[in-house]
Amino acid sequence: MKIPKSIFRLIESFEKLPGIGPKTAQRLTFYLLHVPQEEMERFAAALVDLKKNTKLCSICKNVDETDICGVCSDPVRDKNTIAVVAGPMDVFALEKTGYKGVYHVLHGLIDPLNNIGPEEIFINELVKRLKNDIDGEVEVIMATSTSMEGESTAMFIAKLIRESNIIGKNIKITRLARGLPVGGDVEYADDITLGRALEGRSVI
Amino acid sequence: MKIPKSIFRLIESFEKLPGIGPKTAQRLTFYLLHVPQEEMERFAAALVDLKKNTKLCSICKNVDETDICGVCSDPVRDKNTIAVVAGPMDVFALEKTGYKGVYHVLHGLIDPLNNIGPEEIFINELVKRLKNDIDGEVEVIMATSTSMEGESTAMFIAKLIRESNIIGKNIKITRLARGLPVGGDVEYADDITLGRALEGRSVI
Repeated sequence: MKIPKSIFRLIESFEKLPGIGPKTAQRLTFYLLHVPQEEMERFAAALVDLKKNTKLCSICKNVDETDICGVCSDPVRDKNTIAVVAGPMDVFALEKTGYKGVYHVLHGLIDPLNNIGPEEIFINELVKRLKNDIDGEVEVIMATSTSMEGESTAMFIAKLIRESNIIGKNIKITRLARGLPVGGDVEYADDITLGRALEGRSVI
Repeated sequence: MKIPKSIFRLIESFEKLPGIGPKTAQRLTFYLLHVPQEEMERFAAALVDLKKNTKLCSICKNVDETDICGVCSDPVRDKNTIAVVAGPMDVFALEKTGYKGVYHVLHGLIDPLNNIGPEEIFINELVKRLKNDIDGEVEVIMATSTSMEGESTAMFIAKLIRESNIIGKNIKITRLARGLPVGGDVEYADDITLGRALEGRSVI
């Protein structure tokens, strides 16, 4: 017996998602057989509308339903503090901390093994933005992850900004602190993290 | 900043799926932002069509695109060997073993803690099928899982069939063997599995 075509097509669609293997795709599909049709239609509409109703903010490249996103158009936000992040999910994570600056979303990290070079992500747009759209003192916070790709992307961008001869502006480039996660055990911390925590120690 | 509505709606739809938490739902949604629109439409169509194009076989209750499913309408299959399974995924698993009998799909297991009683799944339909549609010697293979729910559903059905006074038919009720999984280590097997493997030992 073959898997019916309409079941197979949905399994295939699920399988294309990251982190979803053949077994999970099957399980999700058979689960949906018991879900009311109207809920399926709602799910389908959400899929179709996702990209139709969203756009990239022309200033920060974050995803929102309006061009000039909610953050960039908010008069309260500090436009001279820019957190550079890899993707929109990082924006939501930083928002939860009460961060009051703005963002620059790269939509990726430099990753030569996967053919992602500096041209594939929004790095040049950041330099242009610093050159043309911002006056006075600026802080650029490199808020990419501490993976190899995150670190090298941060280094690359910092170097690029320094070499770009952005005249008449005082640009400070910072990096998120590395150290023990809150609630973390010293004994279970890896050497590198513990080393960074030592280096970055502060007076109490 | 709030999550844009069209992003939030898709996150919500993913979150309703079993085994997908808020973080995974977010990750999947943001991943889909980078997928071509036509692929999204294909995914959406597969969702909408899933239940429209499938039905339950009126004989075995398996899911297929035709009433009288592929297995039940296949003249080669042995109609007097019926494997009783919890769901359509189990059918696909058994098909891979080369099993040549037919199925009866319960669409669930008796699970009082979740308010699923014998009336909620296709148990009565199995008894009716044995009474009315099958002649001669029959083997009913209880192929439910070895969880508490699987075992008690198997016991319940076996008892029900025996007490149903199905006259003039020779009904043999069997259960899938319990024992060591192929490739399994004796030292890591749990007591109950190892006990069952001993009980069910065979001559070599």
